[in-house]
Amino acid sequence: MKGFVFQGPGRSAWQDVQDPDVQDPTDAVVRVDTVTICGTDLHVLKGDVPEVRPGTVLGHEAVGEVVEIGADVRAVQPGERVLISCISACGRCRFCREGMYGQCLGGGGWLLGRHIDGTQAEYVRVPFADTSLHPLPASVTDREAVLLADILPTGYEVGVLAGRVAPGDTVAVVGAGPVGLAAIATSRLFAPERVVAVDVAPTRLETARKLGADVVCDAREEPEQLVADLTGDLGADVVIEAVGLPETFELCTRMVRPGGRIANVGVHGRPATLHLEELWARNITVTTGLVDTRSTPTLLKMAATGRLPTGQLITHLFPLERIEEAYEVFAHPAETGAIKVVLGGPHREVVPASEVYEG
Amino acid sequence: MKGFVFQGPGRSAWQDVQDPDVQDPTDAVVRVDTVTICGTDLHVLKGDVPEVRPGTVLGHEAVGEVVEIGADVRAVQPGERVLISCISACGRCRFCREGMYGQCLGGGGWLLGRHIDGTQAEYVRVPFADTSLHPLPASVTDREAVLLADILPTGYEVGVLAGRVAPGDTVAVVGAGPVGLAAIATSRLFAPERVVAVDVAPTRLETARKLGADVVCDAREEPEQLVADLTGDLGADVVIEAVGLPETFELCTRMVRPGGRIANVGVHGRPATLHLEELWARNITVTTGLVDTRSTPTLLKMAATGRLPTGQLITHLFPLERIEEAYEVFAHPAETGAIKVVLGGPHREVVPASEVYEG
Amino acid sequence: MKGFVFQGPGRSAWQDVQDPDVQDPTDAVVRVDTVTICGTDLHVLKGDVPEVRPGTVLGHEAVGEVVEIGADVRAVQPGERVLISCISACGRCRFCREGMYGQCLGGGGWLLGRHIDGTQAEYVRVPFADTSLHPLPASVTDREAVLLADILPTGYEVGVLAGRVAPGDTVAVVGAGPVGLAAIATSRLFAPERVVAVDVAPTRLETARKLGADVVCDAREEPEQLVADLTGDLGADVVIEAVGLPETFELCTRMVRPGGRIANVGVHGRPATLHLEELWARNITVTTGLVDTRSTPTLLKMAATGRLPTGQLITHLFPLERIEEAYEVFAHPAETGAIKVVLGGPHREVVPASEVYEG
Amino acid sequence: MKGFVFQGPGRSAWQDVQDPDVQDPTDAVVRVDTVTICGTDLHVLKGDVPEVRPGTVLGHEAVGEVVEIGADVRAVQPGERVLISCISACGRCRFCREGMYGQCLGGGGWLLGRHIDGTQAEYVRVPFADTSLHPLPASVTDREAVLLADILPTGYEVGVLAGRVAPGDTVAVVGAGPVGLAAIATSRLFAPERVVAVDVAPTRLETARKLGADVVCDAREEPEQLVADLTGDLGADVVIEAVGLPETFELCTRMVRPGGRIANVGVHGRPATLHLEELWARNITVTTGLVDTRSTPTLLKMAATGRLPTGQLITHLFPLERIEEAYEVFAHPAETGAIKVVLGGPHREVVPASEVYEG
Repeated sequence: MKGFVFQGPGRSAWQDVQDPDVQDPTDAVVRVDTVTICGTDLHVLKGDVPEVRPGTVLGHEAVGEVVEIGADVRAVQPGERVLISCISACGRCRFCREGMYGQCLGGGGWLLGRHIDGTQAEYVRVPFADTSLHPLPASVTDREAVLLADILPTGYEVGVLAGRVAPGDTVAVVGAGPVGLAAIATSRLFAPERVVAVDVAPTRLETARKLGADVVCDAREEPEQLVADLTGDLGADVVIEAVGLPETFELCTRMVRPGGRIANVGVHGRPATLHLEELWARNITVTTGLVDTRSTPTLLKMAATGRLPTGQLITHLFPLERIEEAYEVFAHPAETGAIKVVLGGPHREVVPASEVYEG
Repeated sequence: MKGFVFQGPGRSAWQDVQDPDVQDPTDAVVRVDTVTICGTDLHVLKGDVPEVRPGTVLGHEAVGEVVEIGADVRAVQPGERVLISCISACGRCRFCREGMYGQCLGGGGWLLGRHIDGTQAEYVRVPFADTSLHPLPASVTDREAVLLADILPTGYEVGVLAGRVAPGDTVAVVGAGPVGLAAIATSRLFAPERVVAVDVAPTRLETARKLGADVVCDAREEPEQLVADLTGDLGADVVIEAVGLPETFELCTRMVRPGGRIANVGVHGRPATLHLEELWARNITVTTGLVDTRSTPTLLKMAATGRLPTGQLITHLFPLERIEEAYEVFAHPAETGAIKVVLGGPHREVVPASEVYEG
Repeated sequence: MKGFVFQGPGRSAWQDVQDPDVQDPTDAVVRVDTVTICGTDLHVLKGDVPEVRPGTVLGHEAVGEVVEIGADVRAVQPGERVLISCISACGRCRFCREGMYGQCLGGGGWLLGRHIDGTQAEYVRVPFADTSLHPLPASVTDREAVLLADILPTGYEVGVLAGRVAPGDTVAVVGAGPVGLAAIATSRLFAPERVVAVDVAPTRLETARKLGADVVCDAREEPEQLVADLTGDLGADVVIEAVGLPETFELCTRMVRPGGRIANVGVHGRPATLHLEELWARNITVTTGLVDTRSTPTLLKMAATGRLPTGQLITHLFPLERIEEAYEVFAHPAETGAIKVVLGGPHREVVPASEVYEG
Repeated sequence: MKGFVFQGPGRSAWQDVQDPDVQDPTDAVVRVDTVTICGTDLHVLKGDVPEVRPGTVLGHEAVGEVVEIGADVRAVQPGERVLISCISACGRCRFCREGMYGQCLGGGGWLLGRHIDGTQAEYVRVPFADTSLHPLPASVTDREAVLLADILPTGYEVGVLAGRVAPGDTVAVVGAGPVGLAAIATSRLFAPERVVAVDVAPTRLETARKLGADVVCDAREEPEQLVADLTGDLGADVVIEAVGLPETFELCTRMVRPGGRIANVGVHGRPATLHLEELWARNITVTTGLVDTRSTPTLLKMAATGRLPTGQLITHLFPLERIEEAYEVFAHPAETGAIKVVLGGPHREVVPASEVYEG
């Protein structure tokens, strides 16, 4: 079969690779029908994720059809349409039993496209299939579902749930990239009084509005003051960091009210300064987290009833074999306006010719 | 009357001051029978707390007898023995209604010995008496009670409750000064598997053991490795910072397990480095806080049934008029071994002659 | 002034009564501009609430303008437009400090129109003004606000919050009278997958739909089976009882899934049967409660941003002096279709002539 | 091998049965070293549990050594000493993922000694071994561990955790049989102000004291009044029902304070009356539940550090082959004083000759 292979820093190709098969009795093999590209994949390509060895098929987000299962798989059957979660959960370790699948101690966690071949291929082997695949209701399209593999649960769990967004809250989201937008969209599930989106890209702020932001703010135009003005100088109840830079994290700590929560969703490469000399007495909470995908069943129910406006997040469609081009588009959002780029395999008409991006 | 007065950085005296009286209908005046000195008072003396004006009577911890009440005070009566909370709560603002008295927006918060005259005097005016005084059960002695004015609720609320200590947890407490020791003692209320105390002073570690630490560790002898060894390399469920330095805060962030909590109790004067490049994916929670004293009724019940081993915290007793000497002892713990220094007024035999510290 | 006075079981009149004035320093006197009638008022009229003495002005819901305040009132000023909460909170007792105002031990609780003169009059004295009145934002109309005096917080706190409605839940509400409808409308704040409304009156089910019910069911047509069918035979996550009869309570216990919650909002006059022989092993939770109105600030924020569709609940408008007629309409919903009946005093044009109900 | 077999209502025997073997790849076979008898086993013997077919080996509590594992078992190895949980968890279904193993939808739940052969035999097959067995630390003896198979987690989860016992609480436990005693012992983990035990048997009340009850009360001597007196007429914060009769459940509802919790642990055969006409406005919570055993790892940690005084619960020891006699002793507690009866197999000296009960 064909797959998109990391060949070492800066090198990759859509090339022939070996077909996957069932190795453990808890494995399933899934035919990939719909797949997307994550910001993390770009980091892997650059060589920022050293545990990924050259030769690995990338990708950890997909929708497809089960084609083969191991002897101990009970929850899915060949022929079933499934969502592949970005996190594989052994289901047996201490952390999996607590629903903290992202920290799995039993051989799971983020495996696909990292420790083992991933989803950007025609077929993929998924370990721990019973606890890592989600059968899809017919009313959820592939395009909606594929966003639930990673970014929606990430924004929801690591941003909205960790930040304990509650009715009446003022929520500030710093960073309106894919995950920040997912946090904006899912914070609406808890009826905040207002969601404030902060970013530097006008098009992203525009999308933020469509996904539920009530107020948008250019990051260079005093977002701190804006939030203070909106909240009687108290600050936001919840601030979600969705950029991953020291500066934006520190901005978040200046935007939060006494007793408020800062939920860090951004992937950081450098330390930040925590101004404890100002924060020690303010009753604030800072959380970090990798997605666990324990919320995926809930989000699937919301998507099935049309309550997640995820369609707005997809800006470009490609057939699977044009994935190298799709990476180019996704890697240059300032030029292309890309938010999420979705690719469809040949088996289902997920990406009809009429909608394919023509550059 | 006499009071201990801040006269500007480095200067103070036990001197004549004006008698307090009821100014607002919600005030009470209390005769001070037992009082103690807090580390914060030392900071005030040095001039580190600029909002304290020269001429202010210091102190925010005391037990005494109500001698006069305003027209709208209903919950306490003249003649009643009461604990004076270090936090005055208006009881009406948004934060007081949520039990977050330390962040009171209605004129309360930490007032005594800061914005108004405090408890290190023969009498003290207490604003918002109904929501800031606690009638004392007969079975709680003055000496036990006075520790509930500040350090016990601080260790319990900002350390143990914010850190969500739960049965079976491994709890590490970094810093075994008065508040760290209070956190150790009160973490036992939630049946942790083990409490690890970390400090540089052997005498404090010894007291930590008496108050409930199962394991003690010199801070210079690899506390990180000790906690890793005790927890199968995972880290502690809860780490409580009770020092207030960047180094100790950063140590805490290296001692916590995935999914664990770091509760900062220490008073910080400088920023710390938050290693988000390591922590972003580890599901950790960092909390800060000023005490609210909302747990005081609970702690009083525990003390009344003999379940708080607070006696171990008091190392020196003085009559009230020897407060200058008491400050000297308290300010030099390395030499004196002081943890908490308690002073008794003349009206009740809280500090009998036989127990007075003689230097 | 005039007021609507209970004169003993079955007897009442709009008649001259003495003007209220400030009695305690925490009192306020409010000019009533908008008022409504509660199902509880009908019970009082029948003589079902024996603690209400003849001569009492009825009513515990209103919006008005503060005209006088006691010496210790700080949070509201004469001239300010306020919502009068149905619960008066002393703000100082154990339960008020926990936000459980409905159980106030300090002289508060449900006082208005029960232990003291109520709101169905030209003026009303409100005790504990600081903790029982809510200043109104200009963007909330009187008509919206008056529904926040009782039924909205009751449906929200005792139904939705006690039942812990969460995103993705199936919520069944049994009884679509005013409070059941309030529970339906406010359960939407937590993004349930679906809300099922059960009642016998088609018009109420129609209103339920407008307020957010996804599915409606005639109570005589096997609601149990309907919920089972919708949930793969598991049952609803949350069932809210909003009728107050043993039969409907028992129906609720048959509609709930293992691990689910039954929140009782209905006012009961007789005991129900709890089938513990079926329920003991099913991990269910049953809650009861009187409203605390601790959620009123949150609901006001939601109303101010147009997120509470409360307008649908008001079916009839009257000038205040026609209150006897309004009672008649409200007491016969089967004939009149009444849900909430709102009355306006002469000072603000809350009920313009063009909208007054003409029978 | 030999096993204790249910032969139909009123008939049973220690007899030859077929040796168990691995049937599914997730099975383990365990050699039984220590076993106990549960009140539920007595119900099965009487024929009260119709799903148990004649021919079934009884018992759902044991400690033993793994002798064989299926191809997909990863968490335990042959030769390992394990606790067999009374609940078998598939680990994959919706409820198992939420830690609600007792409600398992994937073929688990209470299986042993009910739907399949149980633990009162020389060997037992345990399905879903990875999620149903717990490796035992060396510092926990068999006798301590076997109580953690069912009664300790039942009292803790269904009583203490569901009832949300918190520091300072007054906890009343009605019924001081094995599970009630387990609730008393484990409620101490949350530092209640006092635990009140209510029963009719003086010997059980005596054991209750040893396990941590501060106050004991003969059920015929006005326990309601006692609790009222202890709590300033408010009632207990938490009441745990551990009998299983309508009368005791109703007693519990009269002992709880406004805002308090009633946790039902008792197994009921008949409905109770819920006095909603009194309770509707009192903010109470009633919970029911089957044990999930999700707390077993925590309880094992507490036992390993000597913090669970479970030894007091074991009154009689027998060698395994004398199980018929052990049943007789356990079935007549009034005469024998039996609380828990523990039996040891021949392989480990769990029940040395010197300690065997001789009648």
